[in-house]
Amino acid sequence: MSAAHREDKLAEEKVFKDPVHKYIYVQDQLIWQLINTREFQRLRRIRQLGTSYLTFHGAEHSRFSHSLGVYEITRKIISQFERGGYTDWPKEEKLVALCAALLHDVGHGPFSHSIEDVFDSHHEEWTCRILLGNTEINAVLREFDPSYPERIAAVICKTYHQPIVVSLVSSQMDADRMDYLLRDAYFTGVNYGTFDLERILRVLRPHQGRIVVKESGMHAVEDYLMSRYQMYWQVYFHPVTRSSEIILRQIFRRAKELFGSDYQFQSLMKPIRMLLEGTMDIEGYLNLDEALVQTAFAQWAHEPDPVLSDLCRRFLNRKLYKYVTMDHPDEKLWQEIREQLQKIGLHPDYHLEIDFPYDMPYDVYRPGSTSAAGKEEKPPILLLSSDERLSEISSRSDIIRSITGIHQGKYHLYYPEEPLRESAHRLPAKLRELFALM
Amino acid sequence: MSAAHREDKLAEEKVFKDPVHKYIYVQDQLIWQLINTREFQRLRRIRQLGTSYLTFHGAEHSRFSHSLGVYEITRKIISQFERGGYTDWPKEEKLVALCAALLHDVGHGPFSHSIEDVFDSHHEEWTCRILLGNTEINAVLREFDPSYPERIAAVICKTYHQPIVVSLVSSQMDADRMDYLLRDAYFTGVNYGTFDLERILRVLRPHQGRIVVKESGMHAVEDYLMSRYQMYWQVYFHPVTRSSEIILRQIFRRAKELFGSDYQFQSLMKPIRMLLEGTMDIEGYLNLDEALVQTAFAQWAHEPDPVLSDLCRRFLNRKLYKYVTMDHPDEKLWQEIREQLQKIGLHPDYHLEIDFPYDMPYDVYRPGSTSAAGKEEKPPILLLSSDERLSEISSRSDIIRSITGIHQGKYHLYYPEEPLRESAHRLPAKLRELFALM
Amino acid sequence: MSAAHREDKLAEEKVFKDPVHKYIYVQDQLIWQLINTREFQRLRRIRQLGTSYLTFHGAEHSRFSHSLGVYEITRKIISQFERGGYTDWPKEEKLVALCAALLHDVGHGPFSHSIEDVFDSHHEEWTCRILLGNTEINAVLREFDPSYPERIAAVICKTYHQPIVVSLVSSQMDADRMDYLLRDAYFTGVNYGTFDLERILRVLRPHQGRIVVKESGMHAVEDYLMSRYQMYWQVYFHPVTRSSEIILRQIFRRAKELFGSDYQFQSLMKPIRMLLEGTMDIEGYLNLDEALVQTAFAQWAHEPDPVLSDLCRRFLNRKLYKYVTMDHPDEKLWQEIREQLQKIGLHPDYHLEIDFPYDMPYDVYRPGSTSAAGKEEKPPILLLSSDERLSEISSRSDIIRSITGIHQGKYHLYYPEEPLRESAHRLPAKLRELFALM
Amino acid sequence: MSAAHREDKLAEEKVFKDPVHKYIYVQDQLIWQLINTREFQRLRRIRQLGTSYLTFHGAEHSRFSHSLGVYEITRKIISQFERGGYTDWPKEEKLVALCAALLHDVGHGPFSHSIEDVFDSHHEEWTCRILLGNTEINAVLREFDPSYPERIAAVICKTYHQPIVVSLVSSQMDADRMDYLLRDAYFTGVNYGTFDLERILRVLRPHQGRIVVKESGMHAVEDYLMSRYQMYWQVYFHPVTRSSEIILRQIFRRAKELFGSDYQFQSLMKPIRMLLEGTMDIEGYLNLDEALVQTAFAQWAHEPDPVLSDLCRRFLNRKLYKYVTMDHPDEKLWQEIREQLQKIGLHPDYHLEIDFPYDMPYDVYRPGSTSAAGKEEKPPILLLSSDERLSEISSRSDIIRSITGIHQGKYHLYYPEEPLRESAHRLPAKLRELFALM
Repeated sequence: MSAAHREDKLAEEKVFKDPVHKYIYVQDQLIWQLINTREFQRLRRIRQLGTSYLTFHGAEHSRFSHSLGVYEITRKIISQFERGGYTDWPKEEKLVALCAALLHDVGHGPFSHSIEDVFDSHHEEWTCRILLGNTEINAVLREFDPSYPERIAAVICKTYHQPIVVSLVSSQMDADRMDYLLRDAYFTGVNYGTFDLERILRVLRPHQGRIVVKESGMHAVEDYLMSRYQMYWQVYFHPVTRSSEIILRQIFRRAKELFGSDYQFQSLMKPIRMLLEGTMDIEGYLNLDEALVQTAFAQWAHEPDPVLSDLCRRFLNRKLYKYVTMDHPDEKLWQEIREQLQKIGLHPDYHLEIDFPYDMPYDVYRPGSTSAAGKEEKPPILLLSSDERLSEISSRSDIIRSITGIHQGKYHLYYPEEPLRESAHRLPAKLRELFALM
Repeated sequence: MSAAHREDKLAEEKVFKDPVHKYIYVQDQLIWQLINTREFQRLRRIRQLGTSYLTFHGAEHSRFSHSLGVYEITRKIISQFERGGYTDWPKEEKLVALCAALLHDVGHGPFSHSIEDVFDSHHEEWTCRILLGNTEINAVLREFDPSYPERIAAVICKTYHQPIVVSLVSSQMDADRMDYLLRDAYFTGVNYGTFDLERILRVLRPHQGRIVVKESGMHAVEDYLMSRYQMYWQVYFHPVTRSSEIILRQIFRRAKELFGSDYQFQSLMKPIRMLLEGTMDIEGYLNLDEALVQTAFAQWAHEPDPVLSDLCRRFLNRKLYKYVTMDHPDEKLWQEIREQLQKIGLHPDYHLEIDFPYDMPYDVYRPGSTSAAGKEEKPPILLLSSDERLSEISSRSDIIRSITGIHQGKYHLYYPEEPLRESAHRLPAKLRELFALM
Repeated sequence: MSAAHREDKLAEEKVFKDPVHKYIYVQDQLIWQLINTREFQRLRRIRQLGTSYLTFHGAEHSRFSHSLGVYEITRKIISQFERGGYTDWPKEEKLVALCAALLHDVGHGPFSHSIEDVFDSHHEEWTCRILLGNTEINAVLREFDPSYPERIAAVICKTYHQPIVVSLVSSQMDADRMDYLLRDAYFTGVNYGTFDLERILRVLRPHQGRIVVKESGMHAVEDYLMSRYQMYWQVYFHPVTRSSEIILRQIFRRAKELFGSDYQFQSLMKPIRMLLEGTMDIEGYLNLDEALVQTAFAQWAHEPDPVLSDLCRRFLNRKLYKYVTMDHPDEKLWQEIREQLQKIGLHPDYHLEIDFPYDMPYDVYRPGSTSAAGKEEKPPILLLSSDERLSEISSRSDIIRSITGIHQGKYHLYYPEEPLRESAHRLPAKLRELFALM
Repeated sequence: MSAAHREDKLAEEKVFKDPVHKYIYVQDQLIWQLINTREFQRLRRIRQLGTSYLTFHGAEHSRFSHSLGVYEITRKIISQFERGGYTDWPKEEKLVALCAALLHDVGHGPFSHSIEDVFDSHHEEWTCRILLGNTEINAVLREFDPSYPERIAAVICKTYHQPIVVSLVSSQMDADRMDYLLRDAYFTGVNYGTFDLERILRVLRPHQGRIVVKESGMHAVEDYLMSRYQMYWQVYFHPVTRSSEIILRQIFRRAKELFGSDYQFQSLMKPIRMLLEGTMDIEGYLNLDEALVQTAFAQWAHEPDPVLSDLCRRFLNRKLYKYVTMDHPDEKLWQEIREQLQKIGLHPDYHLEIDFPYDMPYDVYRPGSTSAAGKEEKPPILLLSSDERLSEISSRSDIIRSITGIHQGKYHLYYPEEPLRESAHRLPAKLRELFALM
């Protein structure tokens, strides 16, 4: 009977050496088995930070290590809740929470954001397909408890009946964010992304279905949110990383366009074909790792289509687009730029992109944001006073209020430098100035 | 005239954020151009520690970051020599030394040691081919100074006329080793590999064509060599890493064997074909990165040959061979093991390997080792007393003497666990005991 | 001739091992001699953080180590200015700047803020007396260059004719603040006080008599100011530290009062007597270190005056006052509290203190604050754009604007807990509630 | 009834911020009360490393912080034993072990080794007097359980009936040594003293009345012992620290000699008088902290006896003795040196000292050392194999064997430099050479 399994502990605790948490401790047979599935091992071949390694050469860490880290932080939070004996924490949910923490990113594909943009795919959806489909993960979970695949999928989709379990892995201050901030700071080598994890863990409390912060921990939360703020502007929104993401997206857009036309690819590996056709299945998706994508680009660097081959060579050899900073261009200027570029033989759809870093699926902190469906996407961070009153943190902290929904006003215009420089004499003075070609 | 170029400094110093050295400073136009060549950028797709990431999940750092680190340490050593005004340092060699430091690993292929073993290839040779062949690196160097490609190749091949430049990048305590110890420790997360780099740099002195250590720095060298000792036994020789290297080598051996027979591969990407045929050229070699090798394995996981596909799946899904520790098996026992494995359907050439970690191209410290050709491969570490006498360090330090040529006496026998476990009843008791199948 | 001395370098660079900067490098004979004077060595017996060690047990570091640190940061900044070849940096001022950095705190007495409050003494004044008086420091400086004592005093008093030298050691982002933030964070063990020093140093520029920040360094300054913000609220204003400072101040106030009356002290060491009499001279001041003050307290713990002996025992045995948080008490409530405490035998002047942490000689950041005398005390931090325009940083950064002049609205009321608890039944309900004695 | 008290937990866990262990957790009422006694608070006024702060300016940390650290490591080890469920660990001894860990150094006086040498006092003895005498610590322990003072004293004196409790705080790899290595490394700033505490803790096992190490932890122990080795030679035996200890010892010897003669001290604070008279009692001992000793020296710097005042000024102003390295001097040379020094007006008993660093109460590692009384002082470190066999670690590790009982062959001769330099012309050539006065 599976219920008995729930107590299954490993005879001997397993540890992983981890640079961020020193050690990651695995005590449950189930967690150990999940880590050893091929779907989880695949995360070793997906970088946590996509193309950021082209800006910060240390940032080659994988989603595998991040997933273990989220698991470990979740384990520590729950262990603190258990030691504190808080009645608002549902003890029987521990293993569900640990599984959800471990598996929350299992559906991530290579360079997720770019691919998701172009192919309208969603990693959360793939996570659920992997949890519920014909996979090793599904088999391990089902054998342990037939209800587990659905329960864990529910936690990840935020529909689980115990909202406190959801908030462990998905809130403004969840194990996911805590791990990635520390891990990304460690591997990029920036030290402005570090905060005192142990201090944060000490002030978290389970409270009426959510995780809140002891009032005395307000400065610890400020410190954590400032780390996020610094990481977003210094690392995640770094213009060089943005440039590489633009190239990546253009490659996929160009390949999709060519595939939709009568162009014959010289090389087209199966998972890439499925992606372009829109016939992707789980097996194909699991093969679509970053090694394969990079190998496809290396092949496409020799495709006859000059736009595609140029973009691929740029990506592989890191000849990225340059950028200039500008105010929001009006439609007229925009058209003029496009026309002039076309005149000198460029392809504005692929050789020009305007970027406003705020348009990213991140925000430092946003209290009480509500999705279109009327449900709070990421509930705000709440402080719990000694007399059990709750208050939203930005109402208490000037610092946090000042970074709430912060954004910068400048746009970046990305473009390939060499062709513009070569044809500079054929551009009007205004554009030569804009592109600093004087 | 190219000589004038030698003074070419960048208008503004460039920096790379580096987790190990905090920042890497580039001041010379030449270094900046070399970093931006496609051959150097390719190093981003070669991991510094090969398969170690399967043991230490943080160890995903590339040879690109290591190469920058070796450059930076070399820059710091030379800068200390210049500040000290030591006449034994040939100032005019600075840029040659920096280039050699930066480029010393540029010929490394994917999972070098395994491929080199099976295909008898040598990364040093490829480094020279890349330096001297038709490459961006060669063009950049030649434009700067026509003699540079040969000079830098000479430094890397240890034939350069200024031995002190050679010893900067290739000795028992060179910039290469210092960087990889610190870097590998950082990314694996083990802290026993760290030593005090600043302290070591302060005690290095140029002296009669070699780099020696001020006598008062003896304990600093002890500390450095102890770090190496710990890293070798804890990281580089880790039995799980060894297991993954064995699998890797078996994959290549099997592919080579199949290729030599009349087997028809369903997939065979071009650079792999060239490797198997022995027709590899520079272009093919540059495409042979770890992404491509992993993608090839993913394709081979579906090859009809059961040995090859099993090995590839093992590698990708990290179902590695287990191992048992044993004394050196005599020929008779060895034959018996092989026969018994064959009886239960295994292929002893691929499913069994004995490993003695000492058989690795590493040694913690070996004073005055002499190669077959009669020339010292890695000269010993020398201490310089205040009255200018030199002494070999292991003659002075008990600790260092104790780790000189140290090795462990045990052998590891690697094998696939599941088939043995399934057929355990068909094995003789002696082997059941050996493989802990009781 | 003294001018010749200015080139005097040590034959061999000296280093101090320092936990914060790893090593502190001394290259000038003059600096080395200054460090070895008895007045500078005395700083070993003055703690950098006064009574903070009673809250953070690691905070036992001395002003000696801080002074070396300020010197080292100044040395690094100047060295960066020299490497950059900026014409706005007056090269001939290097040694003056280094001396001023080293000696800026040499006039600090034990537990400075408390003593200065009670005896209206000023450490800056003592610094000048030590620089200009009959001291080893004065002798060393004069021998090097007769103008040095006055010049260095002028830098420290902010009247020096080269304002950029003043701003190195005394501005909103000077070497003093940078060192104490990092050092205090290190020794208390809080990691929210760390910022990336190397990153800050890289963006500083000399510009028209002041030190400004390259525009691209804005986030680095944000990070630095956030560190300050965290350190102020978590460390410097810590209520337990405040409590110990209150006790300390009360001890001095009581001793002063008793000394002014006809009370006969049983023990009164000479420097303490001079302090109470107001006859302090340099010799006495140099003897007034924290060892002596603590020894005096140990003697006074046996004085017949119960108020003094109780306060001294509290300080030595760390039986500090407790505190409650309250809104600003009106005069009426305040009188009532005092009266009620008097009724139960307490001495409101010594057993009660209201504290508003904002009343401290610190502020996180205040742009363009102007002293009464109409001159800017600490000029604001300015950003320098690539086209050489300057802008005040809080006009550019939301974060910095939000912490500018920030303060908390709560008051703390400090009192001895035991006597109140014992006499709780004799207090009105309102006070029992206020002091949480229910 | 006191037995009930044993379960007394604090309502809310208390934490101390600690730079070495991040946080120190106090869960028991008893531990909290012990920390708040005046005898324990006194440890704030005793430096952990005596005079080392004169060599390493960061080393100002107190025995208070070290004692908390030993407590915390002990707590962690026991907690690991409890989680592992090892039957060889006597659970009921937890609190006794924690108290012993916390209090093991409570009898330390100022600059212990020097004072103990000169006055033949022993800090262990004072620890027992404080535990068993009329002190706050005794009262707190007795109230908790009348048997506690004796039991804890027995643990510290190594006579406790449960040897495993003794070995937690007193063995070759106990909580005491682990904390001081890490702490001293942190505060001096040397990073060669760090080892991976978490890794060591994971391999400790309770086994038949002792604490042993899992065989797989051998390299972790090597790493720990190498840290000790480095700390001993780089920090604890540092010749500058030795010089300051010599001065200190000479001060006490001179004071004792003067006190025994008819010399009249101008200042003699009570605890110092008791020390010189040999009438020290607990109250006096508790007042004898480093603040008082330093204040006494400041007074003695003005004593008419020139030897005493000179030595005190040297100590306070850090004008230490210089040293030369030499082979062991024979009696004849020794006499000659003494005579010559006397001729130029020096006092050989106070102005000359030969030092052989090995003569210190430390050794890096010594297996199975046996005291005169025939009982093992510090039992060796034992490895526990998976089949439960024990082996002494130096029989297994070449490295450890090489540092066992290691010592250096050189002697250091300490002397005041200035008078010798001034009278150099009056010394024979041989001595001028010896003292490098040529």
